[in-house]
Amino acid sequence: MIGWEDVYKVVVAMVPLYVALILGYGSVKWWHVFTPEQCEAINRFVCFFTLPLFTFEFTAHVDPFKMNYLFIGADAISKFIIVVVLALWAKCSSKGSYCWSITSFSLSTLTNALVVGVPLMKAMYGPMGVDLVVQSYVVQAIIWLTFLLFVLEFRRTGTNFSASTRAVGDSQVISVEAGAAGRDLEGNEDINVASASTRGPSFWSLMKVVGLKLAMNPNSYACFYLVSLRWHFKMPSIMEESILIISKAGTGTAMFSMGLFMALQEKVIACGTSLTVFGMVLRFIAGPAAMAIGAIAVGLHDDVLRVAIIQAALPQSIASFIFAKEYGLHAEVLSTTVIFGMIVSIPVLVAYYAILEFLH
Amino acid sequence: MIGWEDVYKVVVAMVPLYVALILGYGSVKWWHVFTPEQCEAINRFVCFFTLPLFTFEFTAHVDPFKMNYLFIGADAISKFIIVVVLALWAKCSSKGSYCWSITSFSLSTLTNALVVGVPLMKAMYGPMGVDLVVQSYVVQAIIWLTFLLFVLEFRRTGTNFSASTRAVGDSQVISVEAGAAGRDLEGNEDINVASASTRGPSFWSLMKVVGLKLAMNPNSYACFYLVSLRWHFKMPSIMEESILIISKAGTGTAMFSMGLFMALQEKVIACGTSLTVFGMVLRFIAGPAAMAIGAIAVGLHDDVLRVAIIQAALPQSIASFIFAKEYGLHAEVLSTTVIFGMIVSIPVLVAYYAILEFLH
Repeated sequence: MIGWEDVYKVVVAMVPLYVALILGYGSVKWWHVFTPEQCEAINRFVCFFTLPLFTFEFTAHVDPFKMNYLFIGADAISKFIIVVVLALWAKCSSKGSYCWSITSFSLSTLTNALVVGVPLMKAMYGPMGVDLVVQSYVVQAIIWLTFLLFVLEFRRTGTNFSASTRAVGDSQVISVEAGAAGRDLEGNEDINVASASTRGPSFWSLMKVVGLKLAMNPNSYACFYLVSLRWHFKMPSIMEESILIISKAGTGTAMFSMGLFMALQEKVIACGTSLTVFGMVLRFIAGPAAMAIGAIAVGLHDDVLRVAIIQAALPQSIASFIFAKEYGLHAEVLSTTVIFGMIVSIPVLVAYYAILEFLH
Repeated sequence: MIGWEDVYKVVVAMVPLYVALILGYGSVKWWHVFTPEQCEAINRFVCFFTLPLFTFEFTAHVDPFKMNYLFIGADAISKFIIVVVLALWAKCSSKGSYCWSITSFSLSTLTNALVVGVPLMKAMYGPMGVDLVVQSYVVQAIIWLTFLLFVLEFRRTGTNFSASTRAVGDSQVISVEAGAAGRDLEGNEDINVASASTRGPSFWSLMKVVGLKLAMNPNSYACFYLVSLRWHFKMPSIMEESILIISKAGTGTAMFSMGLFMALQEKVIACGTSLTVFGMVLRFIAGPAAMAIGAIAVGLHDDVLRVAIIQAALPQSIASFIFAKEYGLHAEVLSTTVIFGMIVSIPVLVAYYAILEFLH
């Protein structure tokens, strides 16, 4: 049975995150410590320094050759279920659309695994929980965020195609403006990709753009490290400590920066009530439900099953909002889910934790 | 005998600080991530959030009723020696001056105990070293920085007095502009005190200003906490964790911000070679020498004696630079000692560590 001390443990893990969030919010709304221009500076600091190092620090300790493959399999099945359902809905329903399928995919699958997930899982299930949530993060960062980028890029390319089939000749300019990167709270640089128009060899042009994106994404540095692990490279403590001095600031500064972002918005719920409810249902019900199906299908049980379901019910990934904004696709829905989801996640996650205790 | 592994331990403790410093420096000089206006934002973030909480976190764990009184006594004697020598020099020598006495006091006594001292002492002497350096920091913050403020305020008041003995009537406006605070890297707000002119009840006016300063100084919050400890108030873990989420960022962000400051300066050595050497001698030789006299006088021995001497040879306190700038007194000398002292402190402190191993 779950006791009050377990709930308290989870609350103790979450409250500091809210405190950092509120300090960030208050520093703009109440105390006027920062101008909007200065908020941008904190954001850049988080984006270029604390979070890439925070991500690196975590992924560096994941041995990709000792992952829990059943868990990763369950995760893959759940994503597959969601993709199939959304594809069918887009094809067959009169209300279905490609655009809303993309957003629904984001809402139901992409979680804030590191900033919220790690402290929460530590409180709920100890090191085993942290281990699994970090594994799911690595897979999310490497496979699913890249997949989302692909899908968004194809959509833009398609739109450009129908708009300019005749206008564009041989000049296929692909300009990657790294200077435009600067908002991501989960360590993924967002890169402003201008007009990859579709003719002839556009598939390979697109591939090039996506390849460039990946090369400039700090997450890929963690990938390189994962490869070096294969060759039994052990990070010396002096290097580890040098990363830790900044990466320790990751959680606090990320939540603080999130608070700044909240304070700069005109209202917390930007997209209306019904879309907010839609987002919450996808995030906190559809996502975990799909994960439960996947997890039971591969035969997970006990704490691994519980971790699998709860990590699917974490608040919305901030990177998904960044991409939505970058590609101009339902950014207001994603922004609301990120902010509002962060607020309601304590009771939701505690409820999941309590209910899952009854699983045997 | 000191071995290479001991030296390596110290280097491991210091290098991360330099890495954070270099990241800050590089982000302005090489990568152009921040504009000067944005550097100000990072500075404010450090000044208002990470460092006050970092200081609070440390001082909250110091029980003032379990301090090492011999160590504190040795510290007091060393400061007394320095004050007497400087007062004599100011009175008797033809080259002596009140202004240079103040600056020399700063240079020879005030250290960067928390940001540099704590990780260093942890590597050199373990928890006992950390304990002592934090105690010395608490005393420095509460007594000596206040003393320095007093002295600087008296100087300014004296200057105003000779300049405006006749001009000022009854209107003694003391305006404390809290909005001007915002640069201190050791948790002390610097407050812009305008024209406390001297006539009749000016001593009490001055007292009021200094009182106000203290009331707005985040260090005093730590004092309040020290008092509450007396009543056996124990911080609950949820409160402790909420402070830690930001305070963990303290060291990294402070050094990063220091790097930003360095990058914004025109040159690293702003005050000329001879004054730099003067500053270095006071900081790394005169200070520790006075401390050694005090420590031997009260009968300290073994590791406590070593810690006492080494903590007196830490790099220059950043607060002392802030005050110097605020009161327009030799700011370029202090800025050079802070920056250059940080750079040369690794070899100096390792040398002290090695030499002190021969003490028996």
